Amino acid sequence: MKAKSCRKSKTTMTQLVLPNDTNVLGNLFGGILMQWMDIVGAICASKHAESQTVTASVDNISFDNPINLGDVVTLEAQVSRAWNTSMEVYIEVYTSNIKGKAKVKSNHAYFTFVAIDLESKRPVKVPALTPKTSEEIKRYESANRRKEIRLILGKRLKPKDAKEIIDYFGEFQ
Amino acid sequence: MKAKSCRKSKTTMTQLVLPNDTNVLGNLFGGILMQWMDIVGAICASKHAESQTVTASVDNISFDNPINLGDVVTLEAQVSRAWNTSMEVYIEVYTSNIKGKAKVKSNHAYFTFVAIDLESKRPVKVPALTPKTSEEIKRYESANRRKEIRLILGKRLKPKDAKEIIDYFGEFQ
Amino acid sequence: MKAKSCRKSKTTMTQLVLPNDTNVLGNLFGGILMQWMDIVGAICASKHAESQTVTASVDNISFDNPINLGDVVTLEAQVSRAWNTSMEVYIEVYTSNIKGKAKVKSNHAYFTFVAIDLESKRPVKVPALTPKTSEEIKRYESANRRKEIRLILGKRLKPKDAKEIIDYFGEFQ
Amino acid sequence: MKAKSCRKSKTTMTQLVLPNDTNVLGNLFGGILMQWMDIVGAICASKHAESQTVTASVDNISFDNPINLGDVVTLEAQVSRAWNTSMEVYIEVYTSNIKGKAKVKSNHAYFTFVAIDLESKRPVKVPALTPKTSEEIKRYESANRRKEIRLILGKRLKPKDAKEIIDYFGEFQ
Amino acid sequence: MKAKSCRKSKTTMTQLVLPNDTNVLGNLFGGILMQWMDIVGAICASKHAESQTVTASVDNISFDNPINLGDVVTLEAQVSRAWNTSMEVYIEVYTSNIKGKAKVKSNHAYFTFVAIDLESKRPVKVPALTPKTSEEIKRYESANRRKEIRLILGKRLKPKDAKEIIDYFGEFQ
Amino acid sequence: MKAKSCRKSKTTMTQLVLPNDTNVLGNLFGGILMQWMDIVGAICASKHAESQTVTASVDNISFDNPINLGDVVTLEAQVSRAWNTSMEVYIEVYTSNIKGKAKVKSNHAYFTFVAIDLESKRPVKVPALTPKTSEEIKRYESANRRKEIRLILGKRLKPKDAKEIIDYFGEFQ
Repeated sequence: MKAKSCRKSKTTMTQLVLPNDTNVLGNLFGGILMQWMDIVGAICASKHAESQTVTASVDNISFDNPINLGDVVTLEAQVSRAWNTSMEVYIEVYTSNIKGKAKVKSNHAYFTFVAIDLESKRPVKVPALTPKTSEEIKRYESANRRKEIRLILGKRLKPKDAKEIIDYFGEFQ
Repeated sequence: MKAKSCRKSKTTMTQLVLPNDTNVLGNLFGGILMQWMDIVGAICASKHAESQTVTASVDNISFDNPINLGDVVTLEAQVSRAWNTSMEVYIEVYTSNIKGKAKVKSNHAYFTFVAIDLESKRPVKVPALTPKTSEEIKRYESANRRKEIRLILGKRLKPKDAKEIIDYFGEFQ
Repeated sequence: MKAKSCRKSKTTMTQLVLPNDTNVLGNLFGGILMQWMDIVGAICASKHAESQTVTASVDNISFDNPINLGDVVTLEAQVSRAWNTSMEVYIEVYTSNIKGKAKVKSNHAYFTFVAIDLESKRPVKVPALTPKTSEEIKRYESANRRKEIRLILGKRLKPKDAKEIIDYFGEFQ
Repeated sequence: MKAKSCRKSKTTMTQLVLPNDTNVLGNLFGGILMQWMDIVGAICASKHAESQTVTASVDNISFDNPINLGDVVTLEAQVSRAWNTSMEVYIEVYTSNIKGKAKVKSNHAYFTFVAIDLESKRPVKVPALTPKTSEEIKRYESANRRKEIRLILGKRLKPKDAKEIIDYFGEFQ
Repeated sequence: MKAKSCRKSKTTMTQLVLPNDTNVLGNLFGGILMQWMDIVGAICASKHAESQTVTASVDNISFDNPINLGDVVTLEAQVSRAWNTSMEVYIEVYTSNIKGKAKVKSNHAYFTFVAIDLESKRPVKVPALTPKTSEEIKRYESANRRKEIRLILGKRLKPKDAKEIIDYFGEFQ
Repeated sequence: MKAKSCRKSKTTMTQLVLPNDTNVLGNLFGGILMQWMDIVGAICASKHAESQTVTASVDNISFDNPINLGDVVTLEAQVSRAWNTSMEVYIEVYTSNIKGKAKVKSNHAYFTFVAIDLESKRPVKVPALTPKTSEEIKRYESANRRKEIRLILGKRLKPKDAKEIIDYFGEFQ
């Protein structure tokens, strides 16, 4: 399998916040935004893997500013690292209101997807990722640290074995 | 404002996985589960706060086992810590298929909500939380560590100032 | 098949009234509430039967007080009687608004479900029900009278053969 | 206010059963059918009343035959009686599959709606109903008996005061 | 296969504009109206063909007047011409608000559907159409001109070969 | 108001065909695709106009190849001409299945939107469009011919006054 660039599977989704998507305060409902992130991330990972994918995990997402009814939400997803059968996807969310104001970044998140064969319903191998820009390389390199956090939180790694994180925080001690 | 127990705002939601909720593989779509978690968490936080709430952040969620069409999903939410205007809610997801098998835990996650006044749309103070069982106390105490992680990830705290985490990982060095 | 208690299959669903669920007056749309009742009832019946179920009938439901946007709706379902392949489920609906007011009962209804085998798509036998509290016993005993009403309304029983109802109303004559 | 005929507000709705509307067995989900009934009934009542309406109650509905994915569902609603501010609407549901088979009646139900003024959110008077065909007259006359049943079930009428029903069943004793 | 009249497959759908169906201005969202048109048209074509159908094309639709929240929308579909395996369906959309005003025509459109066999997923022959009223005959005869426009726009017919249209517009030159 | 380029408001939407979006044959439902086109077109027009917009008309759309469950649909919208208060938007739809095949164009359509002021609900002026590439110029120039067709079809222009079209087809006579 040939390694692929980040750009090859980059995916953009645009959504308009309709009454259907709002909470009691008239803003975009957090659960709807997460659903959009999940879809755009899955499409991006599926393009890289050339197979169906399922969501394996979602990293911390923070919702800092309310997104209003009528706002345009742009979601950009790109693979930040590929391992054996799983991929980490970096998703950025931009919001702009219609009245000419510049779009502003409102969120970002890392989702992890596993490539699945539709027949056997078993994980399948995915191509490696070749990061190119300095941003892409930075996200590629920090991916293992995020993976350790996921494993600790999923109780599949003991904190004392989280080598990357121990090094990272240990040096501040 | 009088402090409240965890039990006072505990909230249970039950859902049946309908065709409408499935992905291409015929399993529960990750984005739908996150939406259910967001709603049950918001209801729980709103009960504690006695006001409307908005989602401020979602911590790492992992999706280990596929949930199938026709499965029953039970979501249980309880406040794990309350700060000034925000609350951390702990959500557990249990799944059972109909054919008599015991329900199994399939996920858990921490969501953070901010109490909002419906008129002014500004944050409002929330009651303190009084944890009682040993489980509740453990989650209450580890909440500050999770909050530091959120602040680091949201770039509002420098890793070198994350006192709780440095202590925690530093001692493994 | 071993008889089961009511408590064993009791099911709680919590919903938040979102803009998506409202009618032109800004209140919870009756059709949405009926859909929630149907789902929570089906889950409850399926737990008792340990098989898939389909809705066979819905008894009279009255909607006395409007339920508002932003209200929290709690639905509690429990089997009130089991016959050969069908079960009657009693569903209570409670509503509370966020601003600290006590939750109030807003509706109740009886739904009937038939247990269905997923392969053959034919009805299957369900366990008997053992009512315990005086409330449960009362609902268990009045179930046959409600069943007669359903049969009369479905034109499968002639009013003159509705023994339980004739006795009940006859004595007022 | 001038009395109106049944025909004046008769309303027909046609729906196609899409994957979105099905339960785990691949049939039309009971809750979706009830939602369609509620909408077609509300439109019919609103036409008669010339005002918005809210659902006040639903009488017994039985679901005898499964309705399949791809079937066409036709719902016909007509006012069967009007009182002061409320109306009873009779709804018939017909189903046909595409492959040329004749449509068959699969359900019927009585829904009650109250006319509401959009400004004051208070009930408003509705025109009287003039039944014409023998079917319409029969349903008009039996409406008071159904109303008594609703009042008894809603605990707003004591069984011993249900004059129409006592007469009806009493004579079989 | 016996030819059929237009009336035989005429289909009426009634919808109530709910908050769920509105755009940012509080009016019926164009995309929702198109979806309703597509469903009512598909049902109508399927009745004529006695088989499943898929949408082949949609002709020009104009949305002249906004349709408001709470309005009642009536869609009437009838086959205007049948060819070998495809049918043209004429759809009229009427709108009325509740407050007693007469319903007004708000749109019309021509949709084309192809009959499909559910097993082979291949097109199947459909019955001929026998137009009867002068309106039906007029629509039947102009159908070939509309078909040529579709073929030109779909780049499957060169403008210079569009005989009907050349004759029609040529004579104004 | 300063004229704008096409590129300035170009909008990309990506969607994954979920079970929720399919028809009885398991393919993307035509009505859902039209809804996606309407949203992406409205976002694009709103960006150009810097105001809210409503759909004024949709030109002929043809659906040549079925789009399957699990396919990725990419919609690209760009303004093709701006008049006084209205804009024509050109939308291209590309489809790719996951398994590595190249994406193929499956549809295109022209939608027309009118810019609306949110307060007064009246049309507002929009910036002119400056086409740049030869493709953009070609679509810009043919826009008036399409506008004439719309006006004829909407019965607001007599065929004999459709100057552009008469010239175009007349010369083939």
